[in-house]
Amino acid sequence: MNNLDTTFIIVAIATAVVALLYALLLNSRVKRVSQGNDRMKELATHIQEGAMAFLTREYKALVLFVVVLFFVMGLFLPVHSWLTATNFLIGATLSGLAGFFGMRAATSANARTANAAKEGGMNKALSVAFSGGAVMGMSVVGLGLIGLTGLYFIETQIIGVSDTNIASVLTGFGLGASSIALFGRVGGGIYTKAADVGADLVGKVEAGIPEDDPRNPATIADNVGDNVGDVAGMGADLFESFVGSIISAITLGFLAFGVEGAVFPMILAGLGILAAVLGSLFVRGGENTDPAKSLHFGTYVSAGLVVIAAYLLSYFYLGELGPFFAIIAGLAVGLIIAFITEIYTSGEYGSVKKIAEQSETGPATNIIAGLSVGMKSTALPVLFIVIGIIVAFYAAGGNTSVDNGLYGIALAAVGMLSTAGITIAVDAYGPIADNAGGIAEMAELDPSVREVTDKLDAVGNTTAAIGKGFAIGSAALTALALFASYAKVAGLEGINILEPKVIAGLLIGSMLPFLFSAMTMMSVGKAANKMIEEVRRQFREIPGIMEGTAKPEYAKCVDISTAAALREMLLPGVLAVTAPLLTGYVLGAAALGGLLAGALGAGIMMAIFMSNAGGAWDNAKKYIEEGHHGGKGSEPHKAAVTGDTVGDPFKDTSGPSINILIKLMTIVSLVFAGLFGSGLIEQLF
Amino acid sequence: MNNLDTTFIIVAIATAVVALLYALLLNSRVKRVSQGNDRMKELATHIQEGAMAFLTREYKALVLFVVVLFFVMGLFLPVHSWLTATNFLIGATLSGLAGFFGMRAATSANARTANAAKEGGMNKALSVAFSGGAVMGMSVVGLGLIGLTGLYFIETQIIGVSDTNIASVLTGFGLGASSIALFGRVGGGIYTKAADVGADLVGKVEAGIPEDDPRNPATIADNVGDNVGDVAGMGADLFESFVGSIISAITLGFLAFGVEGAVFPMILAGLGILAAVLGSLFVRGGENTDPAKSLHFGTYVSAGLVVIAAYLLSYFYLGELGPFFAIIAGLAVGLIIAFITEIYTSGEYGSVKKIAEQSETGPATNIIAGLSVGMKSTALPVLFIVIGIIVAFYAAGGNTSVDNGLYGIALAAVGMLSTAGITIAVDAYGPIADNAGGIAEMAELDPSVREVTDKLDAVGNTTAAIGKGFAIGSAALTALALFASYAKVAGLEGINILEPKVIAGLLIGSMLPFLFSAMTMMSVGKAANKMIEEVRRQFREIPGIMEGTAKPEYAKCVDISTAAALREMLLPGVLAVTAPLLTGYVLGAAALGGLLAGALGAGIMMAIFMSNAGGAWDNAKKYIEEGHHGGKGSEPHKAAVTGDTVGDPFKDTSGPSINILIKLMTIVSLVFAGLFGSGLIEQLF
Repeated sequence: MNNLDTTFIIVAIATAVVALLYALLLNSRVKRVSQGNDRMKELATHIQEGAMAFLTREYKALVLFVVVLFFVMGLFLPVHSWLTATNFLIGATLSGLAGFFGMRAATSANARTANAAKEGGMNKALSVAFSGGAVMGMSVVGLGLIGLTGLYFIETQIIGVSDTNIASVLTGFGLGASSIALFGRVGGGIYTKAADVGADLVGKVEAGIPEDDPRNPATIADNVGDNVGDVAGMGADLFESFVGSIISAITLGFLAFGVEGAVFPMILAGLGILAAVLGSLFVRGGENTDPAKSLHFGTYVSAGLVVIAAYLLSYFYLGELGPFFAIIAGLAVGLIIAFITEIYTSGEYGSVKKIAEQSETGPATNIIAGLSVGMKSTALPVLFIVIGIIVAFYAAGGNTSVDNGLYGIALAAVGMLSTAGITIAVDAYGPIADNAGGIAEMAELDPSVREVTDKLDAVGNTTAAIGKGFAIGSAALTALALFASYAKVAGLEGINILEPKVIAGLLIGSMLPFLFSAMTMMSVGKAANKMIEEVRRQFREIPGIMEGTAKPEYAKCVDISTAAALREMLLPGVLAVTAPLLTGYVLGAAALGGLLAGALGAGIMMAIFMSNAGGAWDNAKKYIEEGHHGGKGSEPHKAAVTGDTVGDPFKDTSGPSINILIKLMTIVSLVFAGLFGSGLIEQLF
Repeated sequence: MNNLDTTFIIVAIATAVVALLYALLLNSRVKRVSQGNDRMKELATHIQEGAMAFLTREYKALVLFVVVLFFVMGLFLPVHSWLTATNFLIGATLSGLAGFFGMRAATSANARTANAAKEGGMNKALSVAFSGGAVMGMSVVGLGLIGLTGLYFIETQIIGVSDTNIASVLTGFGLGASSIALFGRVGGGIYTKAADVGADLVGKVEAGIPEDDPRNPATIADNVGDNVGDVAGMGADLFESFVGSIISAITLGFLAFGVEGAVFPMILAGLGILAAVLGSLFVRGGENTDPAKSLHFGTYVSAGLVVIAAYLLSYFYLGELGPFFAIIAGLAVGLIIAFITEIYTSGEYGSVKKIAEQSETGPATNIIAGLSVGMKSTALPVLFIVIGIIVAFYAAGGNTSVDNGLYGIALAAVGMLSTAGITIAVDAYGPIADNAGGIAEMAELDPSVREVTDKLDAVGNTTAAIGKGFAIGSAALTALALFASYAKVAGLEGINILEPKVIAGLLIGSMLPFLFSAMTMMSVGKAANKMIEEVRRQFREIPGIMEGTAKPEYAKCVDISTAAALREMLLPGVLAVTAPLLTGYVLGAAALGGLLAGALGAGIMMAIFMSNAGGAWDNAKKYIEEGHHGGKGSEPHKAAVTGDTVGDPFKDTSGPSINILIKLMTIVSLVFAGLFGSGLIEQLF
């Protein structure tokens, strides 16, 4: 490592520190806002305690899993085993911490957003909600980058790990991040949907009380769920993508450009952080401006800054512009997928209107239409991912050097995620606004407050779609780059799909996203049933609950969601880790490559299909509620509610979890790549 | 070719002739049974005319498609272009003829089965229905094998095509079969579901008249649909699998064993035909016996005979037992998948009961449960297909010679399909029994007649599940064997999934089954809407229709289904042909290999998922109708009807069409393999 390389690493560490300091600043700025009246404080405390209790219990439940994997890595990995295992612990811990900080901030911003809406209007409320979300965004990129760059620096400069080995040692960090992400997404997804379905089915449908009514025992659990699923789960997901894309770029960059190639993604990510900080300064609401415009503007400023930084870095540091074009390809594909996602899931466009129209002939045609839209919506994103892959590969020089080309694909992923700081902030702002609306309702604030939070919340739905587009696109590119890294580390010159073992792996890999989705969907069903029973029990057994004279037992519902989520997340999580290990052991490293390719192919489709179908059903229901096809309470509306209920686990549990499934399986394979060889079957015959 | 080879070819031709003669015999035996009273004759004529009209118009619509492809092949293929194109024409024609004969027999057996049930009871009715189905079975295998063996004989012995080239020339025949199969399945699937949904929604739900009521204008179209979808569509599907598996075995067999390896699958298929003929003699009903047992017994006898024949042929003709074990692996996997299919889709087992239970909380939970069951049901079949692939490959000597191993996989597919003659007969018997019940209802026969046909029909549902299991398993193995043949013919030593172009192909391939399913599901929706409008119009505008004093205009409904099916089948059909050609042209032969692998992986899952979810929903509804969870008319029943309606296009249109999509895309690639090279992109950069 020459002086410039060392300087750049230190600069990258410094930018991560900037992100964390900025997160602290934002957090204290949020804290200075009043939480409002006593009732609001009490509700916010309930939600925060519930969310924190879930996170604590979740992390406790994961200790055993993490410890087992720590020892497996330490004892079985061929080189730097304990160091890799230690990085795994650090990765898991930092991902956990990011979730902890982010959720603490989100749950402290919700009542304050409601109060800001009451006292300062749209402008102030947007600022509080966005600041709360930005704590999550900055924690994720700050902790992710400080972990990676810090370990890179310490392990190469102090412990003396060679430049050749450092990437493989860092994969441990990625595995830690992936494990927490999977459990976070699955557990959070089950939690939020169990609470949501329970609150809706018994409260809204059976008892006929409005959403977020304080008489509903599941209402606190429902609000906790928004934080647990959409803040902590999403944050852990993007923490993993962010870290995973950088690790694969380090691995492939070293092969293409030596140390400079490895340092490049880290300094790029660091400059991305600065761009996100600067961009976030542009997010300010006005009484008469559209909050969506303001959020978009901040994102575009950040992206523009990254483009400039990437150009200069590519040209002066790596000495060529190929990597720059690859980064642009990644950024562009991310934005395009986000736009396509909106076309298929927003009520402004034809697909959602079609689903609403099909609700006229009942729930069956609504379901068929929603499933069709979801399936159809896979086509364009995949075509653009394919174009992105090809452009990134050839722009980075893939026609003359495969290593350079693969590096280009990894850089495309890093490029797409370089602005993660602000992307996550925009995404996490949604559930905060949603919670603020809930608190306004439960605390019986003036309807004008709810109007402001509803407006913010509606924008949150659009930004969530964009966030999901980024999550899927980046997962595809990251998984692909990790896959290429896996093959390098496993010493595979090629993975030939004509080999029966490889095709066997491919079939198993294609099947796993289906099995995984089935498991998570059934888990939501089971957990929701428990919640339904509990809410019914409270309505039946607590006298005065419906009159508002007795308080429901909120904590019991929170407990049920927590326990169910923790119990149900284990089996899919264990499947995701053991399936690749078992396939590698029995069928060998090449077959495991087949599994990863199959999981990538079928998994991306399932993720897009389920996320978009769910989003489209949700907005078809909202479209009808706006007064089309008979409006609220009509038969078409009932059909649309059915579609929305089916879509809930699709878009908030199973769909987004598959992103992580793909990445986790790839990174498990990457960490253990040295162990598989030709497999048991080969030795038997 | 030595004398023994020539003799074997001639024997194979002779067995095909036996199959066709047996089909004629069965046909005349059916014809000797009375069609019953005038009303029954009239109804049967309506159904037969409708079915034949559809088939004729479908074939006419395909003429343009076939002619275009004929000239494309003749003008662009590098070797034996016009000969391959001619084989394509012959393949398409014979597949069409098989559909024509089979459907003619099926539509002439329906009223006769009803009359036999009236006059002779269960024993006689089973015999007539099964004989009608067996005409289809024997026509398929007879015409399929006579075409292949006849062309093989004429083109090698008379025209002088070399042993090296004959397999590639015969792929044209396979492409002809595939094209007809795709359009047959898609068109038939759209036809039958449009009629079914239209008849049910307006007739049963809106007007409140029972199923098959003669006052329902769509009832004839509904009965035509059963023949068009479940007889002709299914027959064309298995014609293609049968022919495709033999062609891939000829291709790979020549590489492994020379001419003997190429002749072996043909003589094996021939002996399979004899086994099916003998097995079918054991299908006889008795007043007190279960018709399912009798049908199963016939199938097992055939399978047993094939095992003996395969053993002797392997040992004495090829000189080793490896191929025999591969064949057994195929047969065993087919039976196991059939059994697994039953576990997930029959009301006797937990999955269907679970869906029924989830109907208690409404349509949304019914849908979620059904989707989960369908997704989960992919796991075991895939594991067994994987085991089958591995066993067939290594048993056939794959560890020492890859060619021998791949030949083993092709033989596993031939083994699974060797008893196709009786499998198809058992499958086609179902819709005949179903039609017979419809005619009994419409002709107002004694309820005891309907009881007999209902019993036969119920058995048909189980045998249909078994047939679907075979269709999926055989499609997977056939596509895999064709895929290996494609790589050989394209001159690819390996297909490396680490190449970005290949992964790009894989992503596109994984996406196509989703896009294709979306298109076919939407087509059913559109066609059904047209039918609903027409039925409503007739109820409104024809005075006396509900009182039974005026006849509905059956022909109009038949016309609507026909026109819609023909219009809607074109786009998915064209997609299936152009997607691989375009990918091969732009990204090259290796990327096309990636596309085929991706389509295989995602396609098998989608086919199993959709078929089984549909089957499970159907039987969950029936389970409730048997009196569970409140029985017919209860809220859970309504929820289950919603699931069944969603499941209709799943199991009868989209799911089974994907099997053919996979095979058609592979065979298109195989036929045009010589044209692609490294692709346009490679030349640009």
